Amino acid sequence: MKLIRFGEIGSEKPGIVHQDKWLDCSTFGEDWSEEFLENEGLERLESWLKKNIDILPEVDKSIRLATPIKRPSKIICVGLNYTLHAKESGMSVPEVPILFMKATSSLCGPNDPIIIPRKSEKTDWEVELAVIIGKKATYVSKEEAMDYVAGYCLHNDVSERDFQLHQGGQWVKGKSADNFAPLGPYLVTKDEIKDPHNLRLWLSVNGEMLQDSVTSDLVFDIPTLVSYISQYMSLLPGDIISTGTPSGVGLGLKPPRYLKSGDVVELGIDGLGTAKQVAQNAQ
Amino acid sequence: MKLIRFGEIGSEKPGIVHQDKWLDCSTFGEDWSEEFLENEGLERLESWLKKNIDILPEVDKSIRLATPIKRPSKIICVGLNYTLHAKESGMSVPEVPILFMKATSSLCGPNDPIIIPRKSEKTDWEVELAVIIGKKATYVSKEEAMDYVAGYCLHNDVSERDFQLHQGGQWVKGKSADNFAPLGPYLVTKDEIKDPHNLRLWLSVNGEMLQDSVTSDLVFDIPTLVSYISQYMSLLPGDIISTGTPSGVGLGLKPPRYLKSGDVVELGIDGLGTAKQVAQNAQ
Repeated sequence: MKLIRFGEIGSEKPGIVHQDKWLDCSTFGEDWSEEFLENEGLERLESWLKKNIDILPEVDKSIRLATPIKRPSKIICVGLNYTLHAKESGMSVPEVPILFMKATSSLCGPNDPIIIPRKSEKTDWEVELAVIIGKKATYVSKEEAMDYVAGYCLHNDVSERDFQLHQGGQWVKGKSADNFAPLGPYLVTKDEIKDPHNLRLWLSVNGEMLQDSVTSDLVFDIPTLVSYISQYMSLLPGDIISTGTPSGVGLGLKPPRYLKSGDVVELGIDGLGTAKQVAQNAQ
Repeated sequence: MKLIRFGEIGSEKPGIVHQDKWLDCSTFGEDWSEEFLENEGLERLESWLKKNIDILPEVDKSIRLATPIKRPSKIICVGLNYTLHAKESGMSVPEVPILFMKATSSLCGPNDPIIIPRKSEKTDWEVELAVIIGKKATYVSKEEAMDYVAGYCLHNDVSERDFQLHQGGQWVKGKSADNFAPLGPYLVTKDEIKDPHNLRLWLSVNGEMLQDSVTSDLVFDIPTLVSYISQYMSLLPGDIISTGTPSGVGLGLKPPRYLKSGDVVELGIDGLGTAKQVAQNAQ
């Protein structure tokens, strides 16, 4: 299944994509939330769709897409998880996964604007494969890790490099501004993605392709990440693991290049759809 | 007001403390959540209590206390915010607030056990004054910052020093295990605390006083922190800012000393109550 949420901020509704149409699933009676996933919502939705799919109202595609899941408990990001990106960042390939958090208040729809924060001069892009957790994971092994995965999303881990690296302390300062986590268009359930470690992911700015890689280049793969993170903290249903970005971010260009108001960012991952975000300055 | 939540995990109810009694506020019809705070819940609760306080059922104090607010969007912690603690950590006093995040899945009740994670040898304590945000704060000035504060809580920012400092990357790894954020007993609304910058805070292990300081020693005070953080991300109602710990953590003792199963941690802050946590090993 491909799950979506649509509508204006504060009044989002749940839906699905079926045969290239957006269908309104409001009558299912639940949002795509932590509780939904926790209570075997995906299985229940699949059964319900078998009976109801022909009578669901179609949604006009001019409507705003929201994040495909309701705000979860956390976003855990993995740093320097592609070899060439570690190199362009001037860092070595890590021996263990580097983890950091991004405030969930930074989540927004896949085509919402990227908001350049006040006093920012280095707002940068990062296309990433995001893994969505399906059930609570605590001390899970690598072998059983995929049982805890609900599916995948396209994510732009927008980053302010000066806030992240040069304003004291931890990376979270440069990762958490409003609209720094456009997610979607869909949550694609894992059954629809044969091999999540063989997907092309790309990102362009104003039509110029700047990131273009394959998830087979991940330093730490998805089962390793789920298992590893679950040794340090419990992952809850809906939690997002953003698996890291390949090379081609603005920081790594020579000379470095950052977003300015009006820039158009487009990105995509095989099977997970595409997104388009226009940069604008914070009010 | 002093807000509490009580009951077993998954079936917590809202209440208040009144004349040293715990009163059940279930009939108010709302949990103490982000939505409650966002919709002027504190003002509405205060009015409602004027009419209803005499008919509220008393709660037996043998019942478990939960976190005094429902899980919020984030916990932002401030590192090295007391001069002597920075020194004992072998770090210099920062020129700007050092921020890091703690997963909200680590929240637990004030008297719940501290769970020592598997493979942990350095689980440590940190008594802290936590500020609870009352309304959405984005780019607020220091002068207006206190308008965005709902109140205060006692918090133990439990930390695994090896996970935090020596297992690669960012501090979040050592800050986010289950039960690493005992919060409460109460959320004390700000009107009840005349000067949050003049409160004694203390923590003992097995009866031995190890932390004993005053919030007047904060390097960055509360208005500074609220304003500063709001330049980097939006703070949402219910969000927790944990303002840092004074000296006397296990890492700073000579020799260092860490929690083992059975250790009894007691802590308190003037006006914000006390808490008692017994350490136990993770299953």
